Amino acid sequence: MKILCFLTLAAATLSFAQLSGQNISLPKPNLDKGYSITKSLSLRKSAEAQDFQKAKDLSLEEISDLLWAANGVNRPAEGRRTAPSAMNSQDIYLYVLAKSGAYLYNAKEHTLSLVANSDLRAAGAGGQKAFGDAPIIVLLVSDISKLRSGGEKLGAMDAGIVSQNISLFCSGTGLITRVRASMDVDALTKALKLNASQIPMLNHPVGK
Amino acid sequence: MKILCFLTLAAATLSFAQLSGQNISLPKPNLDKGYSITKSLSLRKSAEAQDFQKAKDLSLEEISDLLWAANGVNRPAEGRRTAPSAMNSQDIYLYVLAKSGAYLYNAKEHTLSLVANSDLRAAGAGGQKAFGDAPIIVLLVSDISKLRSGGEKLGAMDAGIVSQNISLFCSGTGLITRVRASMDVDALTKALKLNASQIPMLNHPVGK
Repeated sequence: MKILCFLTLAAATLSFAQLSGQNISLPKPNLDKGYSITKSLSLRKSAEAQDFQKAKDLSLEEISDLLWAANGVNRPAEGRRTAPSAMNSQDIYLYVLAKSGAYLYNAKEHTLSLVANSDLRAAGAGGQKAFGDAPIIVLLVSDISKLRSGGEKLGAMDAGIVSQNISLFCSGTGLITRVRASMDVDALTKALKLNASQIPMLNHPVGK
Repeated sequence: MKILCFLTLAAATLSFAQLSGQNISLPKPNLDKGYSITKSLSLRKSAEAQDFQKAKDLSLEEISDLLWAANGVNRPAEGRRTAPSAMNSQDIYLYVLAKSGAYLYNAKEHTLSLVANSDLRAAGAGGQKAFGDAPIIVLLVSDISKLRSGGEKLGAMDAGIVSQNISLFCSGTGLITRVRASMDVDALTKALKLNASQIPMLNHPVGK
């Protein structure tokens, strides 16, 4: 049995950088923040690689809001998410790749579990190395074993849905991001100990 | 050479139902409307089939805003869209299936071209007939000939991205919708005269 300890003490006042290297209990997400939905759409754009090289770190509160926006629980009584998924399979898992480690987002608990102690941003960037300088890269993995049929195609659609939650949260709150399909899948699979049904689909460098 | 005539006269004051059966020049989209991005995310949910049976028609302004939000041009100088796509292929095309006909959305011109005179909502609903009572169904088609490699998987991701623009626009402005992958693909392909590279990916019944 795996025992996880989460640091909760005054978490909201510490930055993500200060907390990284350990399990993290995220502050409560802000449920009414940012520009209107259509203004967020009007500002939606893909940042260039060099924009991430000069980007600043996100605060722990921004990471919390970002992950909740991407695929958090928005109806706790039913465990339903901000992102729909094929037959409510909830097949998309989010990993945060940061300088001091990689973390798996647990949407139900709204926590981050440390899953690797190494900096996997270069693997997230793949051949386009400049993206590895982003403060964080959010990796979207579909567990296609949760999809009854048409697995990889439905998983790709579900990843696209979560991706656009990230893009619009960023454009609506002044962060920068870009959806990317290229990455070093083999290196990520190995370092994150993904099994054959856990498919890295897309990734999002994020900064501010 | 095909000649299209668009009705523009006082279009904004007429409903979509009054205009349907002809080419339509859409009113200018509203670029700052609706709840904040995170409130829109917190309200995001999939409507049930019976909700569409009692749903009211959308106004022409709402249809205009909806299509722009889904995959309209948000940076006219560069022709860039609200939805990113693989290598900016802009492979997703939107069809509006309504009682009096089916329309293709031209994002650049922000117009609707009548492409079929028949009611294709039952084909959009597929086996789940109740969805065919929605005022409109927006069909997302990926033209995978525009994608250099990995066509159908990238097209599925791109469709997911556009789908979530629709879901969040609806939750942010008080409309109801649901993303669906099931539909009568053969009937839609035939009636809309789609070729082998134009793949119906997802559909969204929408109402209010």
